[in-house]
Amino acid sequence: VPRGRTRSEEDWIRRIQQIFPTRNRHVLVSIGDDAAILKLSLSSRVVITTDQMVEGVHFQRETHPPVLLGEKALAVNLSDLAAMGASPSWALLSLFLPPDLSHEYLEAVLRGMARLARREGVVLIGGNLTTAKVLALDVTLLGTMTPGLRPLSRHGARPGDTLYVSGTLGGAALGLSLLRAGWRWSDSAARRRQASSPAMRGASAALKRHLAPDPELKLGRLLARHALATSAMDLSDGLSKDLHRLCRASRVGARILAAALPLDSGAVHWLGEEQALRFALHGGEDYRLLFSVPPRRVRRLCRLVPLDRLHPIGQVVSRRDGVKLQDEAGRVVSLPPLGYDHFVSREAMRGPKRR
Amino acid sequence: VPRGRTRSEEDWIRRIQQIFPTRNRHVLVSIGDDAAILKLSLSSRVVITTDQMVEGVHFQRETHPPVLLGEKALAVNLSDLAAMGASPSWALLSLFLPPDLSHEYLEAVLRGMARLARREGVVLIGGNLTTAKVLALDVTLLGTMTPGLRPLSRHGARPGDTLYVSGTLGGAALGLSLLRAGWRWSDSAARRRQASSPAMRGASAALKRHLAPDPELKLGRLLARHALATSAMDLSDGLSKDLHRLCRASRVGARILAAALPLDSGAVHWLGEEQALRFALHGGEDYRLLFSVPPRRVRRLCRLVPLDRLHPIGQVVSRRDGVKLQDEAGRVVSLPPLGYDHFVSREAMRGPKRR
Repeated sequence: VPRGRTRSEEDWIRRIQQIFPTRNRHVLVSIGDDAAILKLSLSSRVVITTDQMVEGVHFQRETHPPVLLGEKALAVNLSDLAAMGASPSWALLSLFLPPDLSHEYLEAVLRGMARLARREGVVLIGGNLTTAKVLALDVTLLGTMTPGLRPLSRHGARPGDTLYVSGTLGGAALGLSLLRAGWRWSDSAARRRQASSPAMRGASAALKRHLAPDPELKLGRLLARHALATSAMDLSDGLSKDLHRLCRASRVGARILAAALPLDSGAVHWLGEEQALRFALHGGEDYRLLFSVPPRRVRRLCRLVPLDRLHPIGQVVSRRDGVKLQDEAGRVVSLPPLGYDHFVSREAMRGPKRR
Repeated sequence: VPRGRTRSEEDWIRRIQQIFPTRNRHVLVSIGDDAAILKLSLSSRVVITTDQMVEGVHFQRETHPPVLLGEKALAVNLSDLAAMGASPSWALLSLFLPPDLSHEYLEAVLRGMARLARREGVVLIGGNLTTAKVLALDVTLLGTMTPGLRPLSRHGARPGDTLYVSGTLGGAALGLSLLRAGWRWSDSAARRRQASSPAMRGASAALKRHLAPDPELKLGRLLARHALATSAMDLSDGLSKDLHRLCRASRVGARILAAALPLDSGAVHWLGEEQALRFALHGGEDYRLLFSVPPRRVRRLCRLVPLDRLHPIGQVVSRRDGVKLQDEAGRVVSLPPLGYDHFVSREAMRGPKRR
């Protein structure tokens, strides 16, 4: 829900929760988390999520290679299941097809999605087609939880827990800025083959992260299997906005250390540290996991999870202490939930120029 | 997928089946039926479907009362589960919201959907919101099958079976024609209160059938519970198109008797018998069930199913005899799958004028 309206996305989600019938005995997790969880029998639990990709909102047809678009439409859903510690299994695909869409583009979208589906063991079991003014893909993804495992959720963070993210932040926002500045994935792929500089590799990686992010399925399952995290979610709308959501769900606050944030190296190169920090805080679509780990689990965490997936960025604090950022000079300031939409409208034009 | 393209909706569905990984051991029914069925454990089966409502394609915002739009977006999915003999339980709702949509309209859409959800015992467990150029609702609906029951599907019709529809046909197409001719639901509701003529009641019923059809959940469950039908599907795109789909899935043909078709009485009144027959054959969105019953089950069928839901319309024949219509003069002609889209573009303008 865009700016200018009196109701935000959060407001509408709360309103929907009010309007619709409450959960029943089969519903373990419902509206408001990354995915819903149904307990269908003693032994079977189904985890379900849905996410849309809309032309002109989430992507531009001219700048998004169709194979990567198909991959991304599935990847953003895989990321939701990763955030629950679930294993993806089945998908439904609703397609909204504009009259001017070429067969070749749609074929490539489907092939990109099928390639990722195969890699992650996902079977497409249904869907629907309709005409529409703009191209949109709406994927519903179903997965399973190993029986007995407690799924990850946004609800369990406790003061004293350490907050982690699973990788660098701000890369997807840099990728989007690059596209807006005229860079194209095809150029970047060509440049990469020429064994180009770290800066070029950074730009390529950023483009890739925006165009088709990697969901953290292995990490999510590891966190759930070993009960390492008290809460988790995937970062789709930017750390600042998503952290507020996690804190609201867990009824806690957070203190983030700016110096600890794993900045995207491409963003640092192309935009400088200050802007890279803003991208890391407020840029969306990185699809890293944000999770909280209690002190007693940290040793085990470090033994079981590869260190490149473990970036401690701050602490969970009590709710009354709010959501704050400690900057590199030691000042503690409020961290507003700026998030993705607001951010791109302000910042994208300051991205690098095409060379 | 509209005319003018070289690939039809059917073509794309086949192409998607080719591109995507094949079914796995949990998938009992997959792409190409009204819903998919997953066997998750010995005792639990989940039935899943998804269907979209897109502004400008499936409805016009000005003529579709929002409460009925919300109801219909769920009803078309309930109808898919009815066609499998399943019981609906959980839904996800993806909303595509244009900037000019009023809060009041969206609130009413949600309330309409929630009312029907409550009535049918459906719990909303998740969804997603995005901005978009036009309003669209994409519902994913999950249901359950009683363990041990064989779900209905499009695949089991055999030559010699009798074909039934569960109610009159052509009403929804008349309703759409009335809307296009300037009739409004609010007028119709007002007229109905005045204890108006059968013609007015017919117009009101037709408007209602287009704006918010009744899914045949009870009938579907009854057919599945007592193993009465060899095949079933819901009529969303018009009898002629959907009958071809059922026949293709079952590898059979069909002989329909024009004189046996239960014409919508409003359509007969407003358009005459000839046009009412065309609406019954090719008009979409009636959301009746079409099902086939073997001779040995007919007696039981008539004992268990209310007679107003049982309209025999013809016979299943062998595949090589094709899909044919016997007209009232006894001539047997081929029945082309004209279906909904083609139909409205040719016929809608011949609907009744507003008075």
